[in-house]
Amino acid sequence: MKSALSSLFSSKNSAISRTFLQQSSKPISQTTFFSSTIPRNTKNLYNQRCQKLQIRPKPSLMASASMSELAREPPALPLPTPPLTKFKIGLCQLSVTPDKERNIKHAKKAIEEAAQKGAKLVLLPEIWNSPYSNDSFPVYAEDIDAGGDASPSTAMLSEVADRLKITIVGGSIPERCGEKLYNTCCVFGSDGKLKAKHRKIHLFDIDIPGKITFMESKTLTAGETPTVVDTDVGRIGIGICYDIRFTELAMIYAARGAHLICYPGAFNMTTGPLHWELAQRARAMDNQLYVATCSPARDPGAGYVAWGHSTLVGPFGEVLATTEHEEDIIIAEIDYSILEQRRASLPFTKQRRGDLYKLVDMQRSNSH
Amino acid sequence: MKSALSSLFSSKNSAISRTFLQQSSKPISQTTFFSSTIPRNTKNLYNQRCQKLQIRPKPSLMASASMSELAREPPALPLPTPPLTKFKIGLCQLSVTPDKERNIKHAKKAIEEAAQKGAKLVLLPEIWNSPYSNDSFPVYAEDIDAGGDASPSTAMLSEVADRLKITIVGGSIPERCGEKLYNTCCVFGSDGKLKAKHRKIHLFDIDIPGKITFMESKTLTAGETPTVVDTDVGRIGIGICYDIRFTELAMIYAARGAHLICYPGAFNMTTGPLHWELAQRARAMDNQLYVATCSPARDPGAGYVAWGHSTLVGPFGEVLATTEHEEDIIIAEIDYSILEQRRASLPFTKQRRGDLYKLVDMQRSNSH
Repeated sequence: MKSALSSLFSSKNSAISRTFLQQSSKPISQTTFFSSTIPRNTKNLYNQRCQKLQIRPKPSLMASASMSELAREPPALPLPTPPLTKFKIGLCQLSVTPDKERNIKHAKKAIEEAAQKGAKLVLLPEIWNSPYSNDSFPVYAEDIDAGGDASPSTAMLSEVADRLKITIVGGSIPERCGEKLYNTCCVFGSDGKLKAKHRKIHLFDIDIPGKITFMESKTLTAGETPTVVDTDVGRIGIGICYDIRFTELAMIYAARGAHLICYPGAFNMTTGPLHWELAQRARAMDNQLYVATCSPARDPGAGYVAWGHSTLVGPFGEVLATTEHEEDIIIAEIDYSILEQRRASLPFTKQRRGDLYKLVDMQRSNSH
Repeated sequence: MKSALSSLFSSKNSAISRTFLQQSSKPISQTTFFSSTIPRNTKNLYNQRCQKLQIRPKPSLMASASMSELAREPPALPLPTPPLTKFKIGLCQLSVTPDKERNIKHAKKAIEEAAQKGAKLVLLPEIWNSPYSNDSFPVYAEDIDAGGDASPSTAMLSEVADRLKITIVGGSIPERCGEKLYNTCCVFGSDGKLKAKHRKIHLFDIDIPGKITFMESKTLTAGETPTVVDTDVGRIGIGICYDIRFTELAMIYAARGAHLICYPGAFNMTTGPLHWELAQRARAMDNQLYVATCSPARDPGAGYVAWGHSTLVGPFGEVLATTEHEEDIIIAEIDYSILEQRRASLPFTKQRRGDLYKLVDMQRSNSH
């Protein structure tokens, strides 16, 4: 039924596609994001509107674009024109063992296979170089900033991205920085350079009695910032596993103009069947963008048993490609031209009620 | 699989249930909501924290309750103690015809049947007294504020609620108020009094080429306010159909202490299979509360064909009871004691990152 549904909505509206491609928004790099993307007069206009409207909201403006604009602070950015509109993504659902060297070689081989099958963007699982446990994190952690021998996992990712000319959202690995440990995702551009580093913002501390208890905060420190990065394959927001629980993060990414959110994640045998697909589909539907997830393959003998089921979800919340729990490489097509179509059909961004609610992106808000 | 999943999480943790029941939060009426519920010193404390933290957020506070509190402005209210913790809800998926008098009699009979089967709360569908069309809305609209003969539909609801001593979330009917028309849900208490009136906030204006085009805004005016109401069966947030699309509204209701959100709704043959269940489950999962929806039964001969599938969803996003598209009355049990359990297991409210994002409830924020 899923594939029947998704085929209902093929991307044949070429007029909308053309409009989409003709947009002139300049792609932005992560470092210049906050200073360069919003013209000053937009902010002034916005502030004037805020002042005027918050004191005495005008019913006549309720359904107008300016009112919906107030539902995000600062106002949402338009979707930028991606360098590539249509491409293949590869989701590598890898088996993970206690042998780190093997894990690195194994991931390398999988990335090469995905690229050989046409993937321009490859996504790896959460914690793919180490068993997922508080005991393992300090042992397997790498100093990513030092690089080279201090971080063989990311050195491999950089080399492969450069050699194969692909973008890699490198799942996550335990990172050591000074005395702190993080659960960190590195994004490498097709030139092999590190474009972004996302440290898991929401640590996985849950306790479902008799089912699953885990406290990442025993060993890990939470990251300090959301991560959106412009790549050869579009503007990508990054979340790691439990980050997907917090709809605000996806909403912020959408407002920053993300085409796609990548969530490396290792849900488990309790939360997996309950929420893994539901959370992905909800984030995609509500924010009208692509969502890609990548889990480790299931190892029933491991201390923490991953659910698997890596998935690509389209902007209507439709599952475009998925798998079971065994090791697998999913190759699926992403077509950003349908984003504008979906948003034209269900124009949430123009229908939000900024007079009634407002989501503030604190980092963007503070930088202005 | 759904029932297996939901049975995994039975509400047997009596310690948590007791704590929940011992809470002393005073239930609030809709009219006194903004002035009476937040102690002044809480607000001062909050402002001090805001001032301190927004200028220089302290990493050591990142995961603390005070930091997560900042993710909602004003801070989220605790769950109040409901007058009734465990009760049955009745969802009346009614057939709707062009004969208004028949529709009213038919709804009355269904409510009586639901009450006879033990329902203490009865939910009706969106636009249950009129065909769903822009042509019909002005013809079938009633002056709810005038009441009596000017609103036979709500007069019936009031009489039945009082006689059967049940709470009724009366789906919605077209409302005339002066020269304006609204899509309006009336909530009647078990004393037959009108406790709240929710006018659909987000009008249903969508255009999926070749599938479904509808523009409620051609005839209807959007409501001006979210609606949360304290009843004999807990604190209930109200949304009508397209309102469910906007996750911000559900987030506001959760922050106002709602136990349950009721969405009368009439998704269609395109958006129904795509999003009806997904949206309900997502709102329930993300906000850790109950969600109940009620649709008209499907009439393939109608101008607008409703999807049906009225549903009750639990606070883990699990479908507790649902139906197909024919006329039906669902009777299902709600147990608010599991809300605290679910929130203890997955403590989102304590894990949000108020340093990174903040959802502002404009109405509550402006009233302080």
